Amino acid sequence: MSLTNSSPTEAARSARIASRKLAILSTKDRNDALTAIHAALSEAKDVILKANAQDLALAERSAESGELSQSLVKRLDLGKKGKYEDMLQGILNVRGLEDPIGKVDRRTLLDDGLLLERKSSPIGVLLIIFEARPEVIANIASLAIKSGNAVILKGGKESTESFKAIATVVSKALESTAVPNEAVQLVTTRDAIKPLLQLDQYIDLVIPRGGNELVRSVKVNTQIPVLGHADGLCSTYIRADCPKDMAVRIVLDAKLSYPAACNSLETLLVDEDALKTVLPAVATALLSKGVSLRCDAPSKSALSAALDKHDATLLQDASEQDFNTEFLDLILAIKTVPKGSSPEESLDFAIDHINKHSSHHTDAILTLEESAARHFQDAVDSAGVFWNTSTRMADGQRFGFGTEVGISTNKIHARGPVGLEGLAIYRWRIDGNGQISTEYGTGGKQWKHQSLPVGDSERLAANDEELEVLREFRAQKAKFPAGAS
Amino acid sequence: MSLTNSSPTEAARSARIASRKLAILSTKDRNDALTAIHAALSEAKDVILKANAQDLALAERSAESGELSQSLVKRLDLGKKGKYEDMLQGILNVRGLEDPIGKVDRRTLLDDGLLLERKSSPIGVLLIIFEARPEVIANIASLAIKSGNAVILKGGKESTESFKAIATVVSKALESTAVPNEAVQLVTTRDAIKPLLQLDQYIDLVIPRGGNELVRSVKVNTQIPVLGHADGLCSTYIRADCPKDMAVRIVLDAKLSYPAACNSLETLLVDEDALKTVLPAVATALLSKGVSLRCDAPSKSALSAALDKHDATLLQDASEQDFNTEFLDLILAIKTVPKGSSPEESLDFAIDHINKHSSHHTDAILTLEESAARHFQDAVDSAGVFWNTSTRMADGQRFGFGTEVGISTNKIHARGPVGLEGLAIYRWRIDGNGQISTEYGTGGKQWKHQSLPVGDSERLAANDEELEVLREFRAQKAKFPAGAS
Repeated sequence: MSLTNSSPTEAARSARIASRKLAILSTKDRNDALTAIHAALSEAKDVILKANAQDLALAERSAESGELSQSLVKRLDLGKKGKYEDMLQGILNVRGLEDPIGKVDRRTLLDDGLLLERKSSPIGVLLIIFEARPEVIANIASLAIKSGNAVILKGGKESTESFKAIATVVSKALESTAVPNEAVQLVTTRDAIKPLLQLDQYIDLVIPRGGNELVRSVKVNTQIPVLGHADGLCSTYIRADCPKDMAVRIVLDAKLSYPAACNSLETLLVDEDALKTVLPAVATALLSKGVSLRCDAPSKSALSAALDKHDATLLQDASEQDFNTEFLDLILAIKTVPKGSSPEESLDFAIDHINKHSSHHTDAILTLEESAARHFQDAVDSAGVFWNTSTRMADGQRFGFGTEVGISTNKIHARGPVGLEGLAIYRWRIDGNGQISTEYGTGGKQWKHQSLPVGDSERLAANDEELEVLREFRAQKAKFPAGAS
Repeated sequence: MSLTNSSPTEAARSARIASRKLAILSTKDRNDALTAIHAALSEAKDVILKANAQDLALAERSAESGELSQSLVKRLDLGKKGKYEDMLQGILNVRGLEDPIGKVDRRTLLDDGLLLERKSSPIGVLLIIFEARPEVIANIASLAIKSGNAVILKGGKESTESFKAIATVVSKALESTAVPNEAVQLVTTRDAIKPLLQLDQYIDLVIPRGGNELVRSVKVNTQIPVLGHADGLCSTYIRADCPKDMAVRIVLDAKLSYPAACNSLETLLVDEDALKTVLPAVATALLSKGVSLRCDAPSKSALSAALDKHDATLLQDASEQDFNTEFLDLILAIKTVPKGSSPEESLDFAIDHINKHSSHHTDAILTLEESAARHFQDAVDSAGVFWNTSTRMADGQRFGFGTEVGISTNKIHARGPVGLEGLAIYRWRIDGNGQISTEYGTGGKQWKHQSLPVGDSERLAANDEELEVLREFRAQKAKFPAGAS
């Protein structure tokens, strides 16, 4: 890692050059670099915490004068019990993940001796912009190295001293490894973001990790593809047949387990027929935990009648704007789904509401009826479409990715929780022995276009006919020079 | 298809609404729509050719006054023998392709009764901007319907009457199908492109199909992701050990079979040791076909000595700019790869040259040495990295995709020749029965994160243990209501 004082253009250009070297390193070379970083950061704990204390002292003064929030100051503190160790463990966890690079996921025999393969490769150069938490830098550097991508890091100014100390340690650690120093660059100058966002000749992907405002400002200022999400307006739809206990359990988890998270529940849709049967128990539980309920007219009227007097006085009226709002707080908007003339009509009403108002992040349906769930999952155009579980499940760790690069509401490349795989793309390889395009087609040779097994299916198809074709191709390739010309 | 006179915003908004309906249609519904379009266009051939004749007459007048090129006029002519029939056959070909929608390609058992699946879905709304050829409209409409995406089409103004006639026929044909009319919209007003490119709330992906200038102007004017390529500067590297016959055969195909294509050869790299052994035969063959050779000093000197007197006088000097130029013409730049101190050094020189100068479209190496080919394929950062074959193989039809949406030099989503699959993204589905996030983790339940077979491996793993787990999950789901809450 180099702590760069050079111009944004120089930083990006040198990252591009380093990315070429990093891209061809073996899995072992990249893993060894993570081992070296882990060891160096373990050893330098005192030095880094000392730098972190400087950031903290400055932040506390800003908090006293009201410029910074206390919660931000807390997030800065690397000395908090277990935090430094978690950061170190995170590096080892990334090291332990499957290598996302060099995997063949498509294989077609175009003709005898002419094999097409699609093989994963790094994207190139990433620009990752993040906010306060200083431990994120170790996580991001690990992800980039593991996936063979060079990365330019721009962190929040409140962590400057911590970042510099970590970068110095990582830089020294990389010297003993095959990973070039310029493959991980830390930019600390405040005004570097805008020029970096213009460098689409060197930077392939921008990942803003932070709030809504950061993501929006990145998106409008660059032509480089941006991976991430500005909003997380998640909904859950309670169908009339949903068991009361399941509804209470799931809605409480979705709203309360981390209200400031992007996968938390913001809008509850409830079937008209569930307003008096399922909703009262859900509302009572939420109110007892201090959640403000912003109800439309039918749900307010039903709850006013069903709840005890004290709870009923707490109910609020929803405005139209509430159904477009990501509260990130102990507030929930409740929308009634009219009965309509059929169960299908109410289902479509809920789907339309979600497609119109949600941020296409994660939405859930709670029902015992499989056909309703399937229709919901087909028709709701969100990254996550869940049945009988909490929207909070939308998370890379929970999905089993081992780590999370971010959550994407993009419609291309990667959608939903993004693991290491989201930092890879592919190249098309052809191995031939002299074939040319004009010998195929009308009057000429015919394409075989035979799909051959890859990965798991290759392993499983031990006796499969298709595997024989692949073996044959490889055997011929081994005798290759004789076959050429 | 509607031939829209409404505002760009209205067109995009109605396409978005139609896309929701289209997205949930069955494979059969979408295929039936293609059958209907095919039948209607077959029947309306005379009407459409009459409209096309109007375009042609206007274009011919413009060609006489020098405003349009004769080659453009030729491309406009739908009446040319076989062209209309090819257009019709193209619709049936797309109909016959495998459905890219609804395929599960990732399946993880998160816990008992909690299954995560990644399932392909349409992207949403496409904006496709294309130039003269009127038959392209039928192809694009077919691809969009097949992949469940709504599409807004903006074609070149020279084909306006042909487009209108085709749109009217397609629109009427769609009335009898499940595909909503607004799912395919033709915009004919000239000034609609810029406003459409601003509508990122309705449009998910822009595909410019046309020249360099069109692609560049689209890219700088939108924040919507753009799929395509501006340039196709493809190279081929002849190693010293390459058999002469193979080099001649492949280079001629790559340069001559369609010089104006993006996958044609523009720069030839030649090992110093091949200048007198392999290159003279290649150069003689190219010169005899009228190709101008722009040579660097070592290659010119070697060829001047090796070629006959007449051919030698035809050799030209290369400027630095020639190695950054996509000629799209009978011109080839030749660059010598210095011998260096080892074969690895010369290989790296060629790789560096390509990474710096090529447009990351398709590059090839010609050698008998597998290790050199593998290093080239790992280190050259292009969509296509080919060994002993022609760069002209970079093509969706040749890859076996059945059709081609375009060729992408993007670093995310889709790279190289893009088939129908490039018009799909995915959603993450979870099927649960009441699980919540807070019951997992420290002190709670443990995640299973068991990867289960999908697609081919599901078929092949008929007796595999993992398949048993999947069968068990499905059996339990069938008895579902009892298991809930």
